[in-house]
Amino acid sequence: MKMIKYNNCNILTAATVVGKKEADGPLGNCFDLCEYDEYFGQDSFEKAESEMARRCLNILFSKANKTHEQTELILGGDLTSQCTGTSFAVNGTDIPFLGLYGACSTVAESLLCGGVFVDSGKTSNAVCFALSHYCTAERQYRFPLEYGNSRTPDAQNTVTGCGAFYLTSEKTGIKITEATIGRIIDRGISDANNMGAAMAGAAVDTIERYFKMSRYKIDDFDLIITGDLGHEGHSIACELFERKEMIMHGKYEDSGRLIYDAEAQDMHSGGSGCGCLATVLGGYLIPKLQRGEYMRILAVGTGALLNKNSALQSRTIPSIAHAVCIESEA
Amino acid sequence: MKMIKYNNCNILTAATVVGKKEADGPLGNCFDLCEYDEYFGQDSFEKAESEMARRCLNILFSKANKTHEQTELILGGDLTSQCTGTSFAVNGTDIPFLGLYGACSTVAESLLCGGVFVDSGKTSNAVCFALSHYCTAERQYRFPLEYGNSRTPDAQNTVTGCGAFYLTSEKTGIKITEATIGRIIDRGISDANNMGAAMAGAAVDTIERYFKMSRYKIDDFDLIITGDLGHEGHSIACELFERKEMIMHGKYEDSGRLIYDAEAQDMHSGGSGCGCLATVLGGYLIPKLQRGEYMRILAVGTGALLNKNSALQSRTIPSIAHAVCIESEA
Repeated sequence: MKMIKYNNCNILTAATVVGKKEADGPLGNCFDLCEYDEYFGQDSFEKAESEMARRCLNILFSKANKTHEQTELILGGDLTSQCTGTSFAVNGTDIPFLGLYGACSTVAESLLCGGVFVDSGKTSNAVCFALSHYCTAERQYRFPLEYGNSRTPDAQNTVTGCGAFYLTSEKTGIKITEATIGRIIDRGISDANNMGAAMAGAAVDTIERYFKMSRYKIDDFDLIITGDLGHEGHSIACELFERKEMIMHGKYEDSGRLIYDAEAQDMHSGGSGCGCLATVLGGYLIPKLQRGEYMRILAVGTGALLNKNSALQSRTIPSIAHAVCIESEA
Repeated sequence: MKMIKYNNCNILTAATVVGKKEADGPLGNCFDLCEYDEYFGQDSFEKAESEMARRCLNILFSKANKTHEQTELILGGDLTSQCTGTSFAVNGTDIPFLGLYGACSTVAESLLCGGVFVDSGKTSNAVCFALSHYCTAERQYRFPLEYGNSRTPDAQNTVTGCGAFYLTSEKTGIKITEATIGRIIDRGISDANNMGAAMAGAAVDTIERYFKMSRYKIDDFDLIITGDLGHEGHSIACELFERKEMIMHGKYEDSGRLIYDAEAQDMHSGGSGCGCLATVLGGYLIPKLQRGEYMRILAVGTGALLNKNSALQSRTIPSIAHAVCIESEA
């Protein structure tokens, strides 16, 4: 196992689009576009999901001041079966495309992989993105919304949101410096309503491996943020850190705990989905790095590698987490 | 748009596992393991699919004489929703894992991406693989087999098979030298029973772009092979080459036409699925390169980026193709 090291991979800018619940949450002011229509003007939730990503990519190109023609690679993924949310969003851009699937870890996977293409000079830039939509995820993993099912206390709410990032070999003041590729961890959990518990072990494994190999210590970071463990998964992760005698110095947080006001918004265990870390990172954390409020963060995407059939067949939920170190030169 | 160039990326060995129909086909003798039980000893088709891949990876490690601990990265994907065929196969290996989704282009995508990690020295080796299973694909994209639906004349048969490749920075006599990342092409086709037609445009676009940027000409190749256009898609691709005045010198073939005996096996338009190119490349073509019968081939994975919902919503089938140039030093 090796640390992936980057010498020349920079984040030029990020763009984010979210839905109503995310706009009404504590980070509502951070996002580029908040759409109150969950259909995004389309006639199906699936089309809405692609339209959300299409708008997010348009905002990214505009903020980056780059054209499709100048862009050499786009990498991304989502939670819909066969990642159609992503492919219909990229359709028409004519940009070379690599589809990724890391469940909710996808945004970290896209930065990690896109970073390798840029850092190695294979391409001089790369757009990395990930997205999720509450309405498509519910009917795919659990039940169609029309059934009006009630939610379990530890259930999380899939974020309707897309986050996109423009990587470049040119200096920008924000750079990706290190990454650790996750391995699949299976703690034997099979409750699809408690994915935070399934993913916590993968997050802790990757963070532990990262710090075994990194030049940095935990205290060198302003923030270590996981993707979407939510309140339940976050507390399990804290317990696992304690058992491993890893002192987190109050630096550890989870995006799923930040994006909603758990009590005022009745969000049970918090946010989840590819869009959770993607929007919190793109809308809230990258600007903090740009302003120099944070100098170094570790973004840890966390993914639960199940599908509806595997849940119905009572299989466990294998999970994965990828860690990416992002630093400010501000 | 850039050609991806590799200076130091070699294929150590390949492994293949197939099902009964593939074993009974003209390439039956080429594969490492032929399993006549479509359940692979499991109690569901989904579990069978992962078991097939698990066996294939075991054979690969054995042929490569490498352990899990020595292996720094594994990349792969499949057609099942949320790629669970892949994640349950990798579960337990403890190898850092990146999940890919490129539909049936996945094996080319995995070689292309794994090659970038190895060539850039980010990892010193990488396992690349892709798989598909007829029984899971049918019920996911079309109908459960138990319905006994009849097939349209231009339908293809999803290959039950897995192909895996061990990449290394050490010289082996077989190397990856160039690759072209596909862009999404949408020819407006929406017939999910005619994916060859949808994918032909993407294949021709990528091959055309490859030869615009490559140091090689078409005639420098022993074979240019697409993934799974089948008989119908192959003939459309030939027509598109003609219109573009690209002379293929009889060098162009499709894996979906090779894996079955179309007439004797009543396979309509031929083979399809991630496992089609993966097994033909791993079992039939890599050995030809190792023996020096072929000196240079262009492997072009072709993927139809649809899902069941997009088909039911009458959406088009966006398609993609990735090209990888593999050369022998024999």
